[in-house]
Amino acid sequence: MPTNLSRRVLVLFLLYCFLCSPWLSARADEGMWTFANPPLKQLKEKYNFEPTKEWLDHVRLSSVRVGGGTGSFVSADGLVLTNHHIVRSSLAKLSTQERDLLKTGFYAKMRAEELKASDLTVEVLVSMADVTERVLSAGRNAADDAAAEASRKKEIALVEKEEREKQSALRPTVISLYEGGEYWLYDYKKYTDVRVVFAPEAQAAEFGGDYDNFTFPRYALDCAFVRVYENDKPAQIQDYLRWNSVGATENELIFVVGNPGSTDRLRAVSQIEYQRDMSNPMQLRSLTRRRDALVRFSARGAEQARRASDTISGYNNTLKRLQGQQEGLLTEKLMRQKLSEESELRARLAKNQEWQKTYGTSWDEMAAVYKKLTPMAKRLFYSSLAGSTLSGYALAFAQYAAEMKKPSAERLPAYRDSNLESLKSQLLSPAPVYMDYEEFVLAERLKEIQDELGADDPFVKAVVGSRNSMETASELIKGTKLNELAYRKSLIEGGPAAIDASTDALIVVARQLDPIVRELDKWNRENVEGARNAAGEKVAKARFAIYGRSIAPDANFTLRFAYGVVKGYELGTTLVPYKTTYAGLYDRGASFEQKPPFNIAPQLLARRQSVELTTPFDFVYTADTIGGNSGSPVINRKGEIVGVNFDSNVHRFVSRYVYTEETGRAMGVHTGGIIEALRKVYDAPALADELEKKAGS
Amino acid sequence: MPTNLSRRVLVLFLLYCFLCSPWLSARADEGMWTFANPPLKQLKEKYNFEPTKEWLDHVRLSSVRVGGGTGSFVSADGLVLTNHHIVRSSLAKLSTQERDLLKTGFYAKMRAEELKASDLTVEVLVSMADVTERVLSAGRNAADDAAAEASRKKEIALVEKEEREKQSALRPTVISLYEGGEYWLYDYKKYTDVRVVFAPEAQAAEFGGDYDNFTFPRYALDCAFVRVYENDKPAQIQDYLRWNSVGATENELIFVVGNPGSTDRLRAVSQIEYQRDMSNPMQLRSLTRRRDALVRFSARGAEQARRASDTISGYNNTLKRLQGQQEGLLTEKLMRQKLSEESELRARLAKNQEWQKTYGTSWDEMAAVYKKLTPMAKRLFYSSLAGSTLSGYALAFAQYAAEMKKPSAERLPAYRDSNLESLKSQLLSPAPVYMDYEEFVLAERLKEIQDELGADDPFVKAVVGSRNSMETASELIKGTKLNELAYRKSLIEGGPAAIDASTDALIVVARQLDPIVRELDKWNRENVEGARNAAGEKVAKARFAIYGRSIAPDANFTLRFAYGVVKGYELGTTLVPYKTTYAGLYDRGASFEQKPPFNIAPQLLARRQSVELTTPFDFVYTADTIGGNSGSPVINRKGEIVGVNFDSNVHRFVSRYVYTEETGRAMGVHTGGIIEALRKVYDAPALADELEKKAGS
Repeated sequence: MPTNLSRRVLVLFLLYCFLCSPWLSARADEGMWTFANPPLKQLKEKYNFEPTKEWLDHVRLSSVRVGGGTGSFVSADGLVLTNHHIVRSSLAKLSTQERDLLKTGFYAKMRAEELKASDLTVEVLVSMADVTERVLSAGRNAADDAAAEASRKKEIALVEKEEREKQSALRPTVISLYEGGEYWLYDYKKYTDVRVVFAPEAQAAEFGGDYDNFTFPRYALDCAFVRVYENDKPAQIQDYLRWNSVGATENELIFVVGNPGSTDRLRAVSQIEYQRDMSNPMQLRSLTRRRDALVRFSARGAEQARRASDTISGYNNTLKRLQGQQEGLLTEKLMRQKLSEESELRARLAKNQEWQKTYGTSWDEMAAVYKKLTPMAKRLFYSSLAGSTLSGYALAFAQYAAEMKKPSAERLPAYRDSNLESLKSQLLSPAPVYMDYEEFVLAERLKEIQDELGADDPFVKAVVGSRNSMETASELIKGTKLNELAYRKSLIEGGPAAIDASTDALIVVARQLDPIVRELDKWNRENVEGARNAAGEKVAKARFAIYGRSIAPDANFTLRFAYGVVKGYELGTTLVPYKTTYAGLYDRGASFEQKPPFNIAPQLLARRQSVELTTPFDFVYTADTIGGNSGSPVINRKGEIVGVNFDSNVHRFVSRYVYTEETGRAMGVHTGGIIEALRKVYDAPALADELEKKAGS
Repeated sequence: MPTNLSRRVLVLFLLYCFLCSPWLSARADEGMWTFANPPLKQLKEKYNFEPTKEWLDHVRLSSVRVGGGTGSFVSADGLVLTNHHIVRSSLAKLSTQERDLLKTGFYAKMRAEELKASDLTVEVLVSMADVTERVLSAGRNAADDAAAEASRKKEIALVEKEEREKQSALRPTVISLYEGGEYWLYDYKKYTDVRVVFAPEAQAAEFGGDYDNFTFPRYALDCAFVRVYENDKPAQIQDYLRWNSVGATENELIFVVGNPGSTDRLRAVSQIEYQRDMSNPMQLRSLTRRRDALVRFSARGAEQARRASDTISGYNNTLKRLQGQQEGLLTEKLMRQKLSEESELRARLAKNQEWQKTYGTSWDEMAAVYKKLTPMAKRLFYSSLAGSTLSGYALAFAQYAAEMKKPSAERLPAYRDSNLESLKSQLLSPAPVYMDYEEFVLAERLKEIQDELGADDPFVKAVVGSRNSMETASELIKGTKLNELAYRKSLIEGGPAAIDASTDALIVVARQLDPIVRELDKWNRENVEGARNAAGEKVAKARFAIYGRSIAPDANFTLRFAYGVVKGYELGTTLVPYKTTYAGLYDRGASFEQKPPFNIAPQLLARRQSVELTTPFDFVYTADTIGGNSGSPVINRKGEIVGVNFDSNVHRFVSRYVYTEETGRAMGVHTGGIIEALRKVYDAPALADELEKKAGS
């Protein structure tokens, strides 16, 4: 066990301790900024970088929204780079029994072979206009908050309609920032002819599966290329990112442009405390219990294990995120930071009489909401038969029967005319239902709600009371035919009358549960949701009043600009490097003796001798990202693409509430790794050439 | 972010959850057993393995004590495999300016080229005899505990003397197990002509340096071969381990034979609580403060950084261990386990009147020791000028002057005639002393003891009181010549008179500090050490009375036998495989762009194209080990060697107190990895052939 630390590393360590650390913590690489308000000051001060308007316009116009995430133009011929997991479902839909694109991967050697993905669209944010004054003034003389909100909504619809009439080729939408502090009219250019050009095997993209998800070092080739077409020809793109196969070096400044989903960084401490003390523990307990139950079910046999496997996997994935989030919330440092932010904000607010009057009570109002919610939280959470597919059908039928008697506009949203098609297709799903699984899950859930809510709770009483949960589940499952597609079809065809007349055991119970669930929903809407949103808006607006645009708005799945450096981190007692290499992929596969999910995808495995092992694979950086940034281009100072973002590490689970930079990192696939794969593994030189060719060539 | 867990892995996971987990926790692979009392029952029940007496004798006689650790015979011609770090200092001594064996590694192509390491001996435990009754009866009719102990010691000396007379070729020694519950006469055969055959570059053995120390996945080729000679010829060895280059597969049963240093598993909870609540926090605080001070010193310049680097590195290493240990102690689970073990033991003890009388009060006595120690702990810990080399010299000279006036037997041990040579060589060390560093360290220490003990503390008063620590340090360092070797030489030559007459500023202070330190030592000996050892012995003996040999004795650097399985583990949210491969070494080097300590050793780097990348490198297993097991052979059921133990992971820092198997692992270099290195990297085919040749060929 050697004890001599190399002096060179030591000196680097000292430099780090004394120069970087306090400096970095003082000016963290935080924020998902809008292109209308990029962090120019921070970039100048910390990185001596001053992007021009042209540079910013160029990277904005090169970035696209695709699938549920992001992508970027990487050639003049409409080529778009995104993540494999963004186009995964499209690949599944394009697959046939003979051609499983997830298993084999796909490469269109010629453009004619590119596969049209009918479910994919690509959108570019072409213009942004500030309509804050127009929207806010619409609500200014309203009688009350609700009326003001209605007036603003009306005005927003009008703004969008006017723009649509002016810009028929575009999709205009008004977005809100800082919880209503700003309103912007965003115009998107939309491409609807999107074709798949290249995807590696799913196993290459998802190497390590759920285990390595959120993990770094990582070896995921999570990339795919699609091409946008116009008039059946590759769209000609002005703004696309030049490809840089060298990638970014350690400590190099990079940018991530994309559509981060949502953050709650501007929220009140009382909300986070509720999450930490009530909501998360309750969810963790329930999910763990349900997961453990399914694990017991699986132990009954291989077929049972197969039936439960996807659900267990889903629970485990949720548990992993939730536990990570909860661990973050339980960190003293995080809570101290949120508390000090909030008290500083409130202290500054108090110095301005008008602000204090408008916003001063927001935090108490928010705290009051959660005080009211707390005693009801368990009822709201447990009053469902979650996990049981047949109970889900039964409740939907019972509600359907009740709702269809009203005019469309008065129904619950899911039952309005516009949504009926989708509802019916869910109710008529041909997916197999396993009665032993259903009975087990229902029995477990009945026992769980008995334990958690007690036999006297109205919901519990209506379905099981203090009866034996296993016997009750057995009777209910024996008494239902909802597993039969034909029966469900007959109920849909027979309409409300047929459902009302049904004596199906589960539907009978659902009819008793429906009013209880509705009443709880109503209580929640009237006592919690409205008040929470109102207080939340005020908190965010107060923050906006004090800090204005000097802080970034919370993410809301609109285009954002983040910055940071490519950088490893210290973890436990050792260092995590800033990148991985092909050699590491082969190590991890061999270390697990190619056991799934650590089996190396066939083509990658076959070409081990061909690839240069030191070629970078994945890499990490400090830029601020969250779900929705999947597929985002990672861009260098020159505006070149150096990677495609696909995940963040476990230390970023708390991203929703705070930005963390000590060990928290976003991660991307390295452009050099992609080119190596295209040229040496997937025999796609034409695609690699299209990427690497110099501009204008 | 994929969500589908492969079903195969899932099924394995379920099997693990439902079959292995409770079973394993019920019968953990715990224990460092003696060969006189191997865990036959556990091996039979858990692994259906029944080693014969011949098997056990064979693996015992194949294992050797070498350096401060372990090794094993691996050929009939006296070849011994051990760790590189076990022979590191020997390699340093054999190095010259022209031939730096640590830098270049070493391989003797012919036997004539093998390098004699004069500081190495190899010992084999050839016989064991139970002398418990003889030793214990010697003390049975003594007047008191002290007299009994003296009688036992006398008897032990007699046993050893008699054996020496009978077995002149052997080195007999009486060892104690279960804190005096058993006494055994161990006879060692000793080889004194030990020659170095092969060692890789130190950088290959220590890849990742302090960062990767205690880390897994790991890529350390921490192995070396030496050969024992008799009469200038390779010793002919009957019992050596056959080499198995395939190594052990996942979940395979393996054994680790070696000389684990020391554990405190049979100790009382009050001792562990003192460690957790008082001793560890105090040490952590002080070490952190001193480390941080040196980091500040280093920031003054490159030369300062160089001067402080080794000490900082040492502090960091100690901090790493101590923090790991403390984290373990702060685990509720660990303390609960220790508490329940202790209360079960005490409850069983209470059922036997005699035992209860003899041992029943041990725990209260132990708790009383620590109650007494607690208010003195800070004085005992801080009453030193730790860190300052010159103050160390000064105190040693002051004590030397005082001690030399007494007859040898009455002196403090370090000053007895038998130790004078060693003392003088320490006092006359030619190592350079940097006065700026000395002044800085002394000033920091003076400030620390002022802060911790207060200006009125006798020790503080004698050296700094409430004066300015920087000014005091400056005066003391300006007033000393102890940095000059010639001056120290003159003091040694002048003897006590010269030292007494010295007006050297540091020696003057040391003369004032000496009586204070002596008094504290005396208090500690009289009030703590004796009582603690007596109570500790009783606790261990009580445990022995109840459980007898069904539990393993605490480790004491004598030969032990541990067992376990080769097995990865779940860490954070992902899996750690049971082995690493050559590919991983190249990944980690490339990921850090060959920056030290992650630079791949020259020959390993040069031969990347030659090695088979999937060859195993290091691997982990559950067997119970601790420091001293370095170099231990890892052996399979057939008695073949499959690896050489060299470290354990961070999750084993608590090994001293408890065995942990969930994530705690020992780690070894894989025999296949060693052969690949010998054949493909280090051009040592003759050595590889000697290892791999079939028995008798």
